[in-house]
Amino acid sequence: MSKQGLIGAVEAGGTKFVLALATQDGEILARTRMPTQTPVETWPAMQAFFEQAAAEHGPIAAFGVASFGPIDIDPASAAYGTFTTTPKPGWSGARFHDVLAGFDAPIKVDTDVNGAAIGEWMAGAGQGCRTVAYTTIGTGIGTGVVRDGRSLMGISHFESGHIMPPRDAARDPFAGICPYHGDCLEGLACGPAIERRWGTSLDKLGPTETGIVADYIAHLASTLVLLHMPDRLIFGGGVMKAPGLVEMVRKATAAKLNGYVQHPRLDEGLEGYIVTPGLGDDAGITGAIELGRQALAAR
Amino acid sequence: MSKQGLIGAVEAGGTKFVLALATQDGEILARTRMPTQTPVETWPAMQAFFEQAAAEHGPIAAFGVASFGPIDIDPASAAYGTFTTTPKPGWSGARFHDVLAGFDAPIKVDTDVNGAAIGEWMAGAGQGCRTVAYTTIGTGIGTGVVRDGRSLMGISHFESGHIMPPRDAARDPFAGICPYHGDCLEGLACGPAIERRWGTSLDKLGPTETGIVADYIAHLASTLVLLHMPDRLIFGGGVMKAPGLVEMVRKATAAKLNGYVQHPRLDEGLEGYIVTPGLGDDAGITGAIELGRQALAAR
Repeated sequence: MSKQGLIGAVEAGGTKFVLALATQDGEILARTRMPTQTPVETWPAMQAFFEQAAAEHGPIAAFGVASFGPIDIDPASAAYGTFTTTPKPGWSGARFHDVLAGFDAPIKVDTDVNGAAIGEWMAGAGQGCRTVAYTTIGTGIGTGVVRDGRSLMGISHFESGHIMPPRDAARDPFAGICPYHGDCLEGLACGPAIERRWGTSLDKLGPTETGIVADYIAHLASTLVLLHMPDRLIFGGGVMKAPGLVEMVRKATAAKLNGYVQHPRLDEGLEGYIVTPGLGDDAGITGAIELGRQALAAR
Repeated sequence: MSKQGLIGAVEAGGTKFVLALATQDGEILARTRMPTQTPVETWPAMQAFFEQAAAEHGPIAAFGVASFGPIDIDPASAAYGTFTTTPKPGWSGARFHDVLAGFDAPIKVDTDVNGAAIGEWMAGAGQGCRTVAYTTIGTGIGTGVVRDGRSLMGISHFESGHIMPPRDAARDPFAGICPYHGDCLEGLACGPAIERRWGTSLDKLGPTETGIVADYIAHLASTLVLLHMPDRLIFGGGVMKAPGLVEMVRKATAAKLNGYVQHPRLDEGLEGYIVTPGLGDDAGITGAIELGRQALAAR
């Protein structure tokens, strides 16, 4: 494939940026990572990387950005690509276009979790699906829903971490840590909630604690089924690495749905329906490349 | 406007069919209603209406159907437009195309609630919105989510009635009536659940009962916000006619979200955000006309 129409891809995380220059069929020609500082440091470093990569490999035809937030991801908005009210020092009001517009190429910006969802849809555990819901259970909880390769949104990106699961106080009396909702899903099942409640991470705890967390995650899984009807649910993030968790999530989700949704996709035991990611750490940058491709196609 | 390109519209309900012949800009030229019997009676009556209307006003260029279910609404499916496992005698396996294909016009089939959502988006309380969630709280509970005039779906239409709300057994010990889930939203808050629990309909009960039901509906409202981020939520159906209910749903939804979602659409008190339908009984047939228009545009 010609090097014409190269894609600049940005995976912007809270702790690190991954930058890549790739061909349209996904071959990565140059790649780097750098710590997330403030825009004063990060913007010039990002600009320098893409300028050098373009000088070496050819002009950049489009950019795809999968970023931490909160960030405006509505292409129709005047503030598209701008960080909104993030507590991260220096980032509120910063805009990807401030740096990337100089390359005179279309830019598509989405959230990090939507980017990972798009990456998994394209090259990971969501291949062959029309609708994929990718959820990360880590420092926070978020879900990206992708339909035919495009992330869904309304007036904003989704906020699945804040749905309210039914509680059984006898089983789990913990009040939750969400500053807005206390015992919403994120308040009960994200990594920091687990640490606060039991003093360590879930992979060091037993089946009782894992079962409690699995039940909350299964509440999200069953709710996603009923409100999005995905072909497949992917659950990633640090918490999901706890031994036995995904199996317990499958079992609890099946119990909650109780046979109501009948479809060949929901196989016996949900082993093919509720899965872990296929790309690991590469989901974000893979999704960012696809976002760049979409920016190019839309031009 | 010319009468060329007329739309045949079908609102197929569990108790009645409404049929209309309309121009593409929505002027209704002929209209009838008939009781829902079995396809043996209903199909020939439907065919006769459209044949006569076409003879009088001109050929039908496309059909739009908003129907009770369960029904296959996936245009890519071989069984598109076919009733699946409905307990309604005679309807399992019946297909709209069996009758309408004779007119040699494209056919778009969607669910009744999606049809009403599309109607409200086009000409009712959802005008000017990009994403609208329309929920009916009646004999059952269902939600249609419309984005830019098209209903969203995954491997099937959504099933919002079966999400599980948190319970307070001290406030409401009722076990629920859903044969699959017991105390899912529909099991607790649909019309028959209210009748079973309190012996009458919600409009004849007091603020205590209305508050209990409002809290369950607000669980759906807040979950829809977090998982679809609509511009507006519309709640219709018989139960929603209970005095004070929509006001209580607004208040309970605001309490659940607790300021987490900041957007101008979510106005103070949610008066412009959570609303009742604008079209009343005409939402379904209005949506069916729009579905016909979409069938025509896709051809």
